[in-house]
Amino acid sequence: LARAKKLRRLVVKHGWKEEDRRIAAELIGEPLPYALHEGMFLKTLLEQGTDEQRKLFYERAEKYEIIGCYAQTELGHGSNVRGLETTATWNADDKTFTLHSPYLTASKWWIGTLGRTANYAAVMAQLIVDGKSCGPHPFVVQIRDLKTHLPLDNIHIGDIGPKFGYNTMDNGFLLFNKVKIPHVSMLARFSRVDPKTNQYIRPSSPSLVYGTLTWIRSTIVMHAGAALAKGVTIAVRYCAIRRQFRDMDAPDSVVEEMPVLNYTLVQYRLLPLLAATFGLHFTGKAMMELYQENQKSMQANAGKGDLLPDLHAMSCGLKALASYTAAEGLEVCRRACGGHGYSSFSGVGGFYADYVPTTTWEGDNYMLTQQVARYLLKSARAVLNGESTSNDTTNFLTTFRSRSDSAPVFDVLNFDADLVQAFAWRAASMTFDALKKRDDQKMAWNDLLVDFYRLSKAHSQYLVVKNFFESLSALQTAGSLGTETPAVFRKLFQLYTLHTLDSESSDFLLSGAVTVRQIEQSRTTIMRLMKEIRPHAVRLVDAWGISDFQLDSSLGRYDGKVYEDMFHRASELNPLNGITIDSNPNSDVLFRSVGGENVKSKL
Amino acid sequence: LARAKKLRRLVVKHGWKEEDRRIAAELIGEPLPYALHEGMFLKTLLEQGTDEQRKLFYERAEKYEIIGCYAQTELGHGSNVRGLETTATWNADDKTFTLHSPYLTASKWWIGTLGRTANYAAVMAQLIVDGKSCGPHPFVVQIRDLKTHLPLDNIHIGDIGPKFGYNTMDNGFLLFNKVKIPHVSMLARFSRVDPKTNQYIRPSSPSLVYGTLTWIRSTIVMHAGAALAKGVTIAVRYCAIRRQFRDMDAPDSVVEEMPVLNYTLVQYRLLPLLAATFGLHFTGKAMMELYQENQKSMQANAGKGDLLPDLHAMSCGLKALASYTAAEGLEVCRRACGGHGYSSFSGVGGFYADYVPTTTWEGDNYMLTQQVARYLLKSARAVLNGESTSNDTTNFLTTFRSRSDSAPVFDVLNFDADLVQAFAWRAASMTFDALKKRDDQKMAWNDLLVDFYRLSKAHSQYLVVKNFFESLSALQTAGSLGTETPAVFRKLFQLYTLHTLDSESSDFLLSGAVTVRQIEQSRTTIMRLMKEIRPHAVRLVDAWGISDFQLDSSLGRYDGKVYEDMFHRASELNPLNGITIDSNPNSDVLFRSVGGENVKSKL
Repeated sequence: LARAKKLRRLVVKHGWKEEDRRIAAELIGEPLPYALHEGMFLKTLLEQGTDEQRKLFYERAEKYEIIGCYAQTELGHGSNVRGLETTATWNADDKTFTLHSPYLTASKWWIGTLGRTANYAAVMAQLIVDGKSCGPHPFVVQIRDLKTHLPLDNIHIGDIGPKFGYNTMDNGFLLFNKVKIPHVSMLARFSRVDPKTNQYIRPSSPSLVYGTLTWIRSTIVMHAGAALAKGVTIAVRYCAIRRQFRDMDAPDSVVEEMPVLNYTLVQYRLLPLLAATFGLHFTGKAMMELYQENQKSMQANAGKGDLLPDLHAMSCGLKALASYTAAEGLEVCRRACGGHGYSSFSGVGGFYADYVPTTTWEGDNYMLTQQVARYLLKSARAVLNGESTSNDTTNFLTTFRSRSDSAPVFDVLNFDADLVQAFAWRAASMTFDALKKRDDQKMAWNDLLVDFYRLSKAHSQYLVVKNFFESLSALQTAGSLGTETPAVFRKLFQLYTLHTLDSESSDFLLSGAVTVRQIEQSRTTIMRLMKEIRPHAVRLVDAWGISDFQLDSSLGRYDGKVYEDMFHRASELNPLNGITIDSNPNSDVLFRSVGGENVKSKL
Repeated sequence: LARAKKLRRLVVKHGWKEEDRRIAAELIGEPLPYALHEGMFLKTLLEQGTDEQRKLFYERAEKYEIIGCYAQTELGHGSNVRGLETTATWNADDKTFTLHSPYLTASKWWIGTLGRTANYAAVMAQLIVDGKSCGPHPFVVQIRDLKTHLPLDNIHIGDIGPKFGYNTMDNGFLLFNKVKIPHVSMLARFSRVDPKTNQYIRPSSPSLVYGTLTWIRSTIVMHAGAALAKGVTIAVRYCAIRRQFRDMDAPDSVVEEMPVLNYTLVQYRLLPLLAATFGLHFTGKAMMELYQENQKSMQANAGKGDLLPDLHAMSCGLKALASYTAAEGLEVCRRACGGHGYSSFSGVGGFYADYVPTTTWEGDNYMLTQQVARYLLKSARAVLNGESTSNDTTNFLTTFRSRSDSAPVFDVLNFDADLVQAFAWRAASMTFDALKKRDDQKMAWNDLLVDFYRLSKAHSQYLVVKNFFESLSALQTAGSLGTETPAVFRKLFQLYTLHTLDSESSDFLLSGAVTVRQIEQSRTTIMRLMKEIRPHAVRLVDAWGISDFQLDSSLGRYDGKVYEDMFHRASELNPLNGITIDSNPNSDVLFRSVGGENVKSKL
């Protein structure tokens, strides 16, 4: 909190813009207690408030006169927003709402910034008008006294306790005991209760709300590459410094140990991740461009965006794939650092723990895959019925239909474009398989979830491969990078793509996109590519230019002074070393002396 | 430390045996600072000390008059013990050794119990006699004053700082600046320096040292099933309680949400792990029995054990597979708990962080796979040359050789014995492939490490499948469990095995053990098996009888009172909730009040 306050004061003092603030917060490198105020609370007020409500709440919040949080998730309800139990009942008599938590499971839970910091909350609650439920809606409510910071009457708030990562954020809980709030508290830009007629008025265009979630997921895709890049930088640099064992085939005259990055088994863990980082980066960029394009088309067409269904499905599938890849990848990087990966000085462990919730929030990665499958099934039905509009998805589905009788031959080891085609083929084949099971065999939705999960992954991997390929082609055409760099990028593309193909080989084999022999050969090609990429590995991560300050890692230092820094932090900076304890089990004394004389150094 | 002291005093007070102490330590459920004294220090003194040294050191250590640690790993050296840099130079003049750390990278590092607790250390150092290095040997040396607990002169000790997990253990570092120690300090049961002749005397039987490591790895295999069982118990119980969304195909009249364990995508993540727990358990048991058998045979044959190479390879490969399965599985269990999996009250996150170093210590999981490959290559060469003794490994290799021309047909979907055969076939095929690459194509060892890694995994998975199958057959023959329980176990065996087969399908396809069509069908069978196992899932984990005290989890409670317990811990037990902060960014005050009045509850 102290850091968050300091940051806010710097923003005011120097007149930083939102972009500057975001960069500064990123540099601090840990979740800050104002984050949900700045992210969700302000955004909700701005997007869902009327002009009057913006004046009343947003303007004060923007100046930090009030500090808010966004209270949606409940103890018993996460993914299923429609199942929320907190109620907001309209009182026709006095034109107020009553907020109430009828069960323990209705406690708002996990709410960032709520635990200790916020004095306001945007609360999602089931609106009840005239005894009928109108679904969840947002309400703004004061929860703590602005002077004493104590909870208001009939409001029970607290911090939910320690977590796996993210412990600098005060996630909290919140219960209401019949708290009355005025009519103006319901954010009414899209739907509202008419105080005169006591009627509920529906939103005109629900797709606008849709848009915000799509935006958040797109940023997660964009950010995943950057998060993984941190871990890859640390692991690649340290493995280039660290030596262990002599080469098994080296002549006896060689006494020097090998840098561990020269071992193919270490390369096999790290270099595909190095390649994935680029794939995620290009995909995130393409995703953001599509988002902007859709925003423009929506403004031009009065809120109707043709791209929205594609964008929504893409953002769901890629959010799941990208955050999974980054989270798993960070843990692989940490373990590739050997024993020292477990030290907090590695800079990877804590960062992993702070990153990994990304796989669960803004749509659980497993849940989201149903959205992708639903979209692909719908597209496939349209293709079958000849009703489809032309876009990339319907195109690859149509191609598959037209060629599925003649067994295709994709020359995945010699032509990069064929590699992309093979990924499209696999996704299309799995789409029609799933459609047959659902529409022809009438299989239960629940019995298809594993198929849907695989399908979503296949489709998202196709998107990454396609975007990676197209971005490289554009770079090559532009010619600004010369010839050598694009050649290395091309190898990274092949490594990422063949490595994915090998990992998912059964899907590819079942769809007939490749043969068993090609899988075998792709393994040989992967070994060759790694050997070719190895000499560039350190320069590639250096090129990202992530500063030592951001990495906060002894192992990933740019200057390679790994052991000096480890020793300095352990021996000089570690406060534990000022303490002398009593280790005799028969003594009740635990601490003999704390601080004072320098007890450790006697050299 | 306070807990460790208390435990030791209870041991003395009640006269507990070693077995009792181990159970009590297990119940405490966190790493204790005496652990390395009790595990490694005492064991080293007992096994490697002469009678005189046992009297001098072991007897005092056993009474906790001295507390020791085992100092092997160095800042710059982990896996490669021969590369250690700490030296112990024999001084012929005064019959002493000089311990010295010539470089910063020679600092002993990660040494458990050393950071704050130990006053003695068993130090592995390069013995130098007459200018020649004789390799690493163990020395016992006092490092802290027994009264003041301050480090002795010319010894630099400290704690290495915070870690990813395992923070209740005081891992430390240690440097020597030319510290003289007497002749008796070198543990001399196997090799020694003769003080009269100043000659180094080699160990007679190095395989005895081998034995200890094998034993440690065997216990890791045994323990992996138990560790995973904790995570599976928590996740299965919570997913049976937690409800989210209605079934997509349910009629509108159904308003109740479904327990998430009914979703096939949740089952797909948890039930194979439930099955794996049993597989690991039976394998660990078989491994321990083999270890005992080998010990007997070694005693009968004056230290020569025919089983030792098998046992060594098996312990390496299974240690890697089992600890990997348990570590990954725990993280899958945590994430299957959704948002609440991130709460410390889930009981999984911290346990994962404490468990995951198991994948790195006692032989890094990746490094170890080379040992397995070396053993399999050697066995395959023996088979080719007709020189092999008959054991399970040479048997399956011989079978493969004799049948590899006639394409085998394993009916993996209908006969469990065929499933086991298919796993053996894959391992044999990969062994001969690797042998061809190494011996015929003369490929570099380093270029084969990825193949060796795959080979080791294939062989270890075969061992788990085989032991699982044989244990079930024995159970069925014994008949003591009736018929229903073995039938459920049989389904668990099939689920584990087919799930593994699907995950590793390219290996199986490349070896010709199964067809693409069989892979496709196995996916359908997996869905059917999960549906059949689901009704038994909660009873299966309940049958393990892990107490609520051991689980220490709101989510995994036996009585299912998940939300009540979450709320109680957050609202009543969380000390943060006694603190009122000042969230105004313009105020320098952070804490308004700490403790005192009950500030949160106003209901």
